[in-house]
Amino acid sequence: MDADTLIAAVSILTAGLTIAIGSIGPALAEGRAASQALQALAQQPDASATITRTLFVSLAMIESTAIYCFVVAMILIFANPFTDLVTQPAGG
Amino acid sequence: MDADTLIAAVSILTAGLTIAIGSIGPALAEGRAASQALQALAQQPDASATITRTLFVSLAMIESTAIYCFVVAMILIFANPFTDLVTQPAGG
Amino acid sequence: MDADTLIAAVSILTAGLTIAIGSIGPALAEGRAASQALQALAQQPDASATITRTLFVSLAMIESTAIYCFVVAMILIFANPFTDLVTQPAGG
Amino acid sequence: MDADTLIAAVSILTAGLTIAIGSIGPALAEGRAASQALQALAQQPDASATITRTLFVSLAMIESTAIYCFVVAMILIFANPFTDLVTQPAGG
Amino acid sequence: MDADTLIAAVSILTAGLTIAIGSIGPALAEGRAASQALQALAQQPDASATITRTLFVSLAMIESTAIYCFVVAMILIFANPFTDLVTQPAGG
Amino acid sequence: MDADTLIAAVSILTAGLTIAIGSIGPALAEGRAASQALQALAQQPDASATITRTLFVSLAMIESTAIYCFVVAMILIFANPFTDLVTQPAGG
Amino acid sequence: MDADTLIAAVSILTAGLTIAIGSIGPALAEGRAASQALQALAQQPDASATITRTLFVSLAMIESTAIYCFVVAMILIFANPFTDLVTQPAGG
Amino acid sequence: MDADTLIAAVSILTAGLTIAIGSIGPALAEGRAASQALQALAQQPDASATITRTLFVSLAMIESTAIYCFVVAMILIFANPFTDLVTQPAGG
Amino acid sequence: MDADTLIAAVSILTAGLTIAIGSIGPALAEGRAASQALQALAQQPDASATITRTLFVSLAMIESTAIYCFVVAMILIFANPFTDLVTQPAGG
Amino acid sequence: MDADTLIAAVSILTAGLTIAIGSIGPALAEGRAASQALQALAQQPDASATITRTLFVSLAMIESTAIYCFVVAMILIFANPFTDLVTQPAGG
Amino acid sequence: MDADTLIAAVSILTAGLTIAIGSIGPALAEGRAASQALQALAQQPDASATITRTLFVSLAMIESTAIYCFVVAMILIFANPFTDLVTQPAGG
Amino acid sequence: MDADTLIAAVSILTAGLTIAIGSIGPALAEGRAASQALQALAQQPDASATITRTLFVSLAMIESTAIYCFVVAMILIFANPFTDLVTQPAGG
Amino acid sequence: MDADTLIAAVSILTAGLTIAIGSIGPALAEGRAASQALQALAQQPDASATITRTLFVSLAMIESTAIYCFVVAMILIFANPFTDLVTQPAGG
Amino acid sequence: MDADTLIAAVSILTAGLTIAIGSIGPALAEGRAASQALQALAQQPDASATITRTLFVSLAMIESTAIYCFVVAMILIFANPFTDLVTQPAGG
Repeated sequence: MDADTLIAAVSILTAGLTIAIGSIGPALAEGRAASQALQALAQQPDASATITRTLFVSLAMIESTAIYCFVVAMILIFANPFTDLVTQPAGG
Repeated sequence: MDADTLIAAVSILTAGLTIAIGSIGPALAEGRAASQALQALAQQPDASATITRTLFVSLAMIESTAIYCFVVAMILIFANPFTDLVTQPAGG
Repeated sequence: MDADTLIAAVSILTAGLTIAIGSIGPALAEGRAASQALQALAQQPDASATITRTLFVSLAMIESTAIYCFVVAMILIFANPFTDLVTQPAGG
Repeated sequence: MDADTLIAAVSILTAGLTIAIGSIGPALAEGRAASQALQALAQQPDASATITRTLFVSLAMIESTAIYCFVVAMILIFANPFTDLVTQPAGG
Repeated sequence: MDADTLIAAVSILTAGLTIAIGSIGPALAEGRAASQALQALAQQPDASATITRTLFVSLAMIESTAIYCFVVAMILIFANPFTDLVTQPAGG
Repeated sequence: MDADTLIAAVSILTAGLTIAIGSIGPALAEGRAASQALQALAQQPDASATITRTLFVSLAMIESTAIYCFVVAMILIFANPFTDLVTQPAGG
Repeated sequence: MDADTLIAAVSILTAGLTIAIGSIGPALAEGRAASQALQALAQQPDASATITRTLFVSLAMIESTAIYCFVVAMILIFANPFTDLVTQPAGG
Repeated sequence: MDADTLIAAVSILTAGLTIAIGSIGPALAEGRAASQALQALAQQPDASATITRTLFVSLAMIESTAIYCFVVAMILIFANPFTDLVTQPAGG
Repeated sequence: MDADTLIAAVSILTAGLTIAIGSIGPALAEGRAASQALQALAQQPDASATITRTLFVSLAMIESTAIYCFVVAMILIFANPFTDLVTQPAGG
Repeated sequence: MDADTLIAAVSILTAGLTIAIGSIGPALAEGRAASQALQALAQQPDASATITRTLFVSLAMIESTAIYCFVVAMILIFANPFTDLVTQPAGG
Repeated sequence: MDADTLIAAVSILTAGLTIAIGSIGPALAEGRAASQALQALAQQPDASATITRTLFVSLAMIESTAIYCFVVAMILIFANPFTDLVTQPAGG
Repeated sequence: MDADTLIAAVSILTAGLTIAIGSIGPALAEGRAASQALQALAQQPDASATITRTLFVSLAMIESTAIYCFVVAMILIFANPFTDLVTQPAGG
Repeated sequence: MDADTLIAAVSILTAGLTIAIGSIGPALAEGRAASQALQALAQQPDASATITRTLFVSLAMIESTAIYCFVVAMILIFANPFTDLVTQPAGG
Repeated sequence: MDADTLIAAVSILTAGLTIAIGSIGPALAEGRAASQALQALAQQPDASATITRTLFVSLAMIESTAIYCFVVAMILIFANPFTDLVTQPAGG
């Protein structure tokens, strides 16, 4: 098993696990925030403007942690700096 | 066991686990949001327009994290960049 | 153990685990949404039209994450692209 | 250990685990939905028609995820496509 | 260790684990449904006919997932198709 | 280590684990159902006939999943079909 | 390591784990049922006859799953059918 | 490593784990029952005779599952039937 | 590694784990019982005699499961019957 | 497998796991804080200025722990000091 | 690796784990009892004498299980009977 | 694999896991504190000065445990004393 | 790998894990006790003397289990009796 | 792999895990205490002096268990007594 193959195998495994594990927390958190927003809307319909605005800002902030994971997974699949590092000296 | 086989085996395993693990969080979160929306509808039927609109936006946002996982799984199965990387030098 | 056998073994294992693990989240989430819909029906029978419509849209959305897992499992069993990839060069 | 034996062993193990793990989520979800339906019946006996109809639709939807697992387990035991794939070239 | 022995060992282990793990979910779910039915009976004795009927239908539905596991376990012990598959070519 | 010994060792281990793991769910479920029945009796002593009848039917249904596990464990210890399968060709 | 020793070692380990794991569920379930019975007695002292009778029937039913485990453990230690099976052909 | 040593090592390990794991369930269950009895005494001091009698019967029943584990542990340490079985043929 | 050393190593490991794992359950249970007793005292100071008597009997009963573990740990360290069993034939 | 490859493989695996595991806590925490803020807005709409300001400061503070993880992951992928350390003496 | 070293390594590992694992249960239990005592004091300041006395007796009883673990850890570090057992025959 | 590479690999893995695991507790704790502060603000808007001051002091204190982890991770990556220790004698 | 190195490696690992695992229980318990004390102070400010005194005694008692772990960790690092035991005969 | 390298690798791994695991408990506990203090402030603003004083004393006490872990981690990284112990005889 040469270096290229190992790097590729580890990158595939890591990319998948990163986005898989990394989607649990944000999804549950968004579910909680959205759930509470719906309860708040039912309880205080007059404040719907403030509630939905706060909800969307919060969802965006929570989504950011999922985005971090997606970015790392994409980097590992399509722009992996270690692939060049390893293949370069081997080809040099 | 040559490089192609290892990459294929790891990709299959990762693709399956990614979508399997990655569907737990979003599913539970959507269940929670939907559940709360139903409770809100029962509590405040007059606000049903605001509630269902907020629900659908939230569901779409939560579904996005499941979509990330599905995209990564599909990339690993049908458009795996590492397959070319490994087979190219071997055939070159 | 040749490449074909390994790919087959990993595909079988992954397909089973994918649909098994992937059915936990959606099932629980549908159970929660359905459970809350029933409570909402008991609490506000007059809103039954809105409640059941919202319930079915939500169930469909949640079921979609289980469908993703089922699709990946079926692809791995019946339309596995890696089987061709591996057997082709071996037969070429 | 030849290819046939390995495929058979992995298929048996996967089929069992698939239906075993895959029955946890749906069972608990059906228990929750049924439990809530009974509470709803006690709370609002007049809405029993709507409640039991919604319950049965929901149970069928939840049962579908268990059916997916059962289908995959049965395919792996009685109609495993990889068995032919592996035995064919070996006999060819 | 020949193929027969391995298939037998894996089948025994899988059959046991399948019914063992597969009985947790249905048992807990039936316990929950039955528990709620008893509470509903205490709360609304007049609706006992509807409640017990809904309970028994639900219990039967939940029991079905345990039956799936029991069927797979019995197939693996008494009608294992892989035993013939493996012993046939070995004896042929 | 010959085939007989391996089959025996796996059967012993599986039989024990099957009934051990398989007793957790039913026991907890029966505890929950019984617990709720006692609460129902304290709340509505007049409905004791209906409550105890429903309780015993439910307990029997829940116990059935434990019985499945016990049956499998007994089959593995005293009527293991794989023992004959393995010893027969060895003695033939 | 000969067959006798392996069977003995596995039997000891399994017997201990069986009764150890198998005592968790029944114990917790009996604790729950007893706990609820005491609460019911405090709430409705007049129904003490019905409550204690239902409690003892329930405890006996729950204890039965622990008895299953104890029986299997005792069979494995004192009446293990595999010991004869293995030693017989070895001595024959 | 001869047979005697292996049997001894496994017996020691199993005896310890049996009583250690087996004490968790009964202890927690007794704690729950006792805790509820104390609450019942504070709520209904007049029923103290019935409550303490029911408590002691329940504690004895729960303790029985811990006793099963202790008995198995003691048998494994001081009256292990497999020690004789293994040493006898070795000395014969 | 001779037999004496293995027995000693396993005994040390088992003795420690036995009392460590075995102290979790009783400690939590005693904490729960004591906690409830304090709440009962605050709620019904007049019944303090009955409450503290019931508490101490319960604590003693719960402590007994911890004592079982301590006894087994002490036996394994200071009066291990397997040490003699193994060293005797080796020296004989 | 040379040093470069090992460092690269470990860095990829660690970078992915760091951001994946490290996003669970902050996401859940932000979901909780946002959820409570929405409830507070529904309960006390007049204090919306104070509430949203406190919410955003808190979200920024919680996000900081996710940022730590992202920073470490980025350092490991793009500015790994150990890569130079290892390749330098090898090339020197 | 000679016997002395193995015994020493196992003793160190066991001593640490024993007191580490063994401190979780008692600490949580004492926290619960103390927490409830404080609540009881706030609820019924007049019964402070009975409450604190019962609290200290309970804390001492719970602490005893932590003491068991500490004693075993100290014995394993400073008065390990197996060290003499193993070194004696080696030096004899 | 030489010493430098091992130290580097272990340092990378440890640094990532340290900050990843170490961010779970502080993040959840800050989320809880912030969440409660928002609830307190909604309940008692007049005490907002005291509440936000106490909140920020608490957040700083909780953040300190995350800082400890970040410091250790940074030390392991950029100022690892063991790298010098190991490379010095090797180069000496 | 000689004896000294093994003892040192095990001691380091054990010392770290001992204090790390051993700090979870006491910290959570102190948090619970302190949390309840604050609630008690808010509920009954007049009993603040009794409450804080009881709190500090309880905190000291809980802290003692953390101290046990710290003591064992320090002994393992700075006054490890096994280091002398092992190095003495090796140097003798 | 020589002794120095092993000691270094184990020390790095242990130091990181110690502070990572050891920060979970204190952080959660401080979060709980702070959270309750904020609730107490909202409920009883007049007792803010007593509450914040008790809070800070409690936070300091809880922080102490995190400090223990940090101290052990720092000792393992910067003042590891085993490094001298091992390198001394090797250089002597």
